[in-house]
Amino acid sequence: MTAGKPIECMAAVAWEAEKPLDVTTVIVAPPQKGEVRIKIVATALCHTDAYTLDGHDPEGLFPAILGHEAAGIVESVGEGVTSVKEGDHVIPCYQAFCGECGMCKSNKTNLCGKVRAWTGKGIMAADSKTRFTHKESGKEIFHFMGTSTFAEYTVVHEVSVAKISKEAKLDKVCLLGCGVTTGLGAVLQTARVEKGSTAAVFGLGTIGLAVVDALRDVGAKRIIGVDTDPNKFERAKEWGATDLVNPKDHDKPIQEVIVEMTNDDGIGGVDYSFECIGNVEVMRAALECCHKGWGQSVVIGVAASGKEISTRPFQLVTGRVWRGTAFGGYKSRIDVPKLVDRYMAGEFRVDEYVTHTLKLKEINQAFDLLHAGKSLRCVMYTDK
Amino acid sequence: MTAGKPIECMAAVAWEAEKPLDVTTVIVAPPQKGEVRIKIVATALCHTDAYTLDGHDPEGLFPAILGHEAAGIVESVGEGVTSVKEGDHVIPCYQAFCGECGMCKSNKTNLCGKVRAWTGKGIMAADSKTRFTHKESGKEIFHFMGTSTFAEYTVVHEVSVAKISKEAKLDKVCLLGCGVTTGLGAVLQTARVEKGSTAAVFGLGTIGLAVVDALRDVGAKRIIGVDTDPNKFERAKEWGATDLVNPKDHDKPIQEVIVEMTNDDGIGGVDYSFECIGNVEVMRAALECCHKGWGQSVVIGVAASGKEISTRPFQLVTGRVWRGTAFGGYKSRIDVPKLVDRYMAGEFRVDEYVTHTLKLKEINQAFDLLHAGKSLRCVMYTDK
Ligand SMILES: NC(=O)c1ccc[n+]([C@@H]2O[C@H](COP(=O)([O-])OP(=O)(O)OC[C@H]3O[C@@H](n4cnc5c(N)ncnc54)[C@H](O)[C@@H]3O)[C@@H](O)[C@H]2O)c1
Ligand SMILES: NC(=O)c1ccc[n+]([C@@H]2O[C@H](COP(=O)([O-])OP(=O)(O)OC[C@H]3O[C@@H](n4cnc5c(N)ncnc54)[C@H](O)[C@@H]3O)[C@@H](O)[C@H]2O)c1
Ligand SMILES: [Zn+2]
Ligand SMILES: [Zn+2]
Ligand SMILES: [Zn+2]
Ligand SMILES: [Zn+2]
Repeated sequence: MTAGKPIECMAAVAWEAEKPLDVTTVIVAPPQKGEVRIKIVATALCHTDAYTLDGHDPEGLFPAILGHEAAGIVESVGEGVTSVKEGDHVIPCYQAFCGECGMCKSNKTNLCGKVRAWTGKGIMAADSKTRFTHKESGKEIFHFMGTSTFAEYTVVHEVSVAKISKEAKLDKVCLLGCGVTTGLGAVLQTARVEKGSTAAVFGLGTIGLAVVDALRDVGAKRIIGVDTDPNKFERAKEWGATDLVNPKDHDKPIQEVIVEMTNDDGIGGVDYSFECIGNVEVMRAALECCHKGWGQSVVIGVAASGKEISTRPFQLVTGRVWRGTAFGGYKSRIDVPKLVDRYMAGEFRVDEYVTHTLKLKEINQAFDLLHAGKSLRCVMYTDK
Repeated sequence: MTAGKPIECMAAVAWEAEKPLDVTTVIVAPPQKGEVRIKIVATALCHTDAYTLDGHDPEGLFPAILGHEAAGIVESVGEGVTSVKEGDHVIPCYQAFCGECGMCKSNKTNLCGKVRAWTGKGIMAADSKTRFTHKESGKEIFHFMGTSTFAEYTVVHEVSVAKISKEAKLDKVCLLGCGVTTGLGAVLQTARVEKGSTAAVFGLGTIGLAVVDALRDVGAKRIIGVDTDPNKFERAKEWGATDLVNPKDHDKPIQEVIVEMTNDDGIGGVDYSFECIGNVEVMRAALECCHKGWGQSVVIGVAASGKEISTRPFQLVTGRVWRGTAFGGYKSRIDVPKLVDRYMAGEFRVDEYVTHTLKLKEINQAFDLLHAGKSLRCVMYTDK
């Protein structure tokens, strides 16, 4: 029985930006009021972790335990926690869902205002403190995105825990904690793409591929995949892309290339576009390759701090819509369990994004694979 | 009987940018296939005319006959024209509606692809020529926005003519040819604002006031009017604005002021915002004063050529939507006649925007009034 006691375990600590993670021993305090301590079973690496470690995140705090795409088992719960109990299988969700705030009550958004003020500062709401201490130095370590899954044990707010089926393989459904869910939701929840639509998908990593998967599923008639790395094309085709374009093969701006490719009606442009990279120039191209009158562009990628998107306002006045999505518009605690069930029913791909597996202590290799563009998702196991 | 013959009449010619209009005699050729010649009865001055005359319009061509907010009577029709006949009361519409092209058939847009390629070049589709010739010099004069209403007679494409009730006063419903329709539609068609919403309206000229009128009508609970000219406040209040803000009275950016004014939920921001000025900095403020999760900003103002809008993509990723509207999203030939009927039934204001009247030959005074911020709409009569 570890409940109520601090746990000593392994974690990968980011002491500062642009340095490899330090696999070391941390002390994880017991969950306080409204908190849940989770034994992480499997955690994947998402580009957003790399973005923060690379120092691009304006909110990035160090030292921190990164990681936000994981699945695990509840070890113990703090005072007042009723929605999960010891032994439940769960996915920690960086988008909280309290069900009570104005945003949770609105059907227009999946954001939640309840704990954001604390998670943004790397601390817990109960006492504005962290639950992680470095064993060797006694230094406090910040939480990240309210999840901090690069550890054997983590503590999260109850409002950030989605309870899922015990049948689901944790080393697969961890991907529903971010990447796959985000891509699917961008199509199904945020843009609500209709059958027969045309679409362009910029960036064919996990997010972009999940977008392609959902587009194929809703019956998009044309799915144009765009990536500067042609090694991404084969898989994208398998996922359902009908056309593949490498911007490097063209002299003209990629938005013009796509408008020409879709110019059956003499106007050209796609009905929907998705930016799955985090590059502000590509975000502009994604908007501008949309069809006049109705084309919608969804920003998914997270741009480096200080970067801005721009366009001529005429693009909007003539009917294009620019929007974005966080966690695919899904209300985490309500929708993630449903997505797990739908995945088990075979409705969409998940296993196929796992291109690599490692042990958590080998996590720096996962960053290398990501930066080299070699992996989609590398899943790490916490058992030694 | 003038049908089939050229007509000599008065027109206000814009020979070049940044010069007063030249009230002179022009020869208006008979309407060709698919064209309608209209005797303009009343025409108003909209900011978009001034924008082009000031040389801000990248598409602006000279010499041209400007004007796009007018009403008149059909004088004669060209070959094949069936939807209107001599004597019909009409409003020329710069947004065409052919009913046949992909965009006309879509319920997602009011744009039409049929004659845009010609109207953008100041010529007519039948023969790629203009119908206006300067009597004295013999020079050809370009059309403007497919309407050119600063003349006693004009020729437009049949797809640009909305036939309206003969009961309607032409010197009032001319405003439904642009300004009032655009403002109403931005709220009712483009944003589809719900009862109980909060909104911010940037710029309280005719467009902004029509936005306020529609917001009040749908039951918006808070309507924040923003203008740098406090003389606009009294009227805006009368129209239904609940709060009035002059950015010059504040040290901090206006978006922050509005977020603070609407911070009942601890997050702040309006559900909808409308930019009715044409200033790219204000367009940014209008987006950024929107509520996280669902706030939508509609760009109505036309920015000067080369100007771009910018923001941090995080604004979109956290749920704000950036869109725009042209002619308020209304399908011109279908919706303008209905708007005329609704105006006659007292559903919204029109007469109240007419702050000045002049004769067409006095048109340069109307530009002066507009630039001095003294007029909402100045309506000009063509009878001498
Ligand atoms: N909004 C959200 O909720 C959310 C959630 C998860 C991830 N993200 C963001 O989504 C983005 C994608 O994440 P991922 O894990 O799929 O990343 P990834 O690195 O696996 O994939 C990015 C892909 O973009 C390609 N690319 C890079 N530059 C390009 C360019 N200029 N033109 C075309 N292609 C280019 C790369 O070759 C790669 O295939 C990241 O910015 C991540 O931070 C956002
Ligand atoms: N999208 C469309 O279909 C469409 C149709 C008609 C007009 N327009 C455009 O809408 C805009 C408004 O037209 P209008 O005829 O109402 O113009 P207007 O000149 O009557 O009104 C503009 C108002 O904005 C105010 N203003 C100027 N700068 C400001 C600032 N920085 N902050 C706050 N207020 C400021 C002015 O004091 C004025 O009251 C113009 O850009 C016009 O070209 C667009
Ligand atoms: Zn992620
Ligand atoms: Zn909430
Ligand atoms: Zn059409
Ligand atoms: Zn106008």
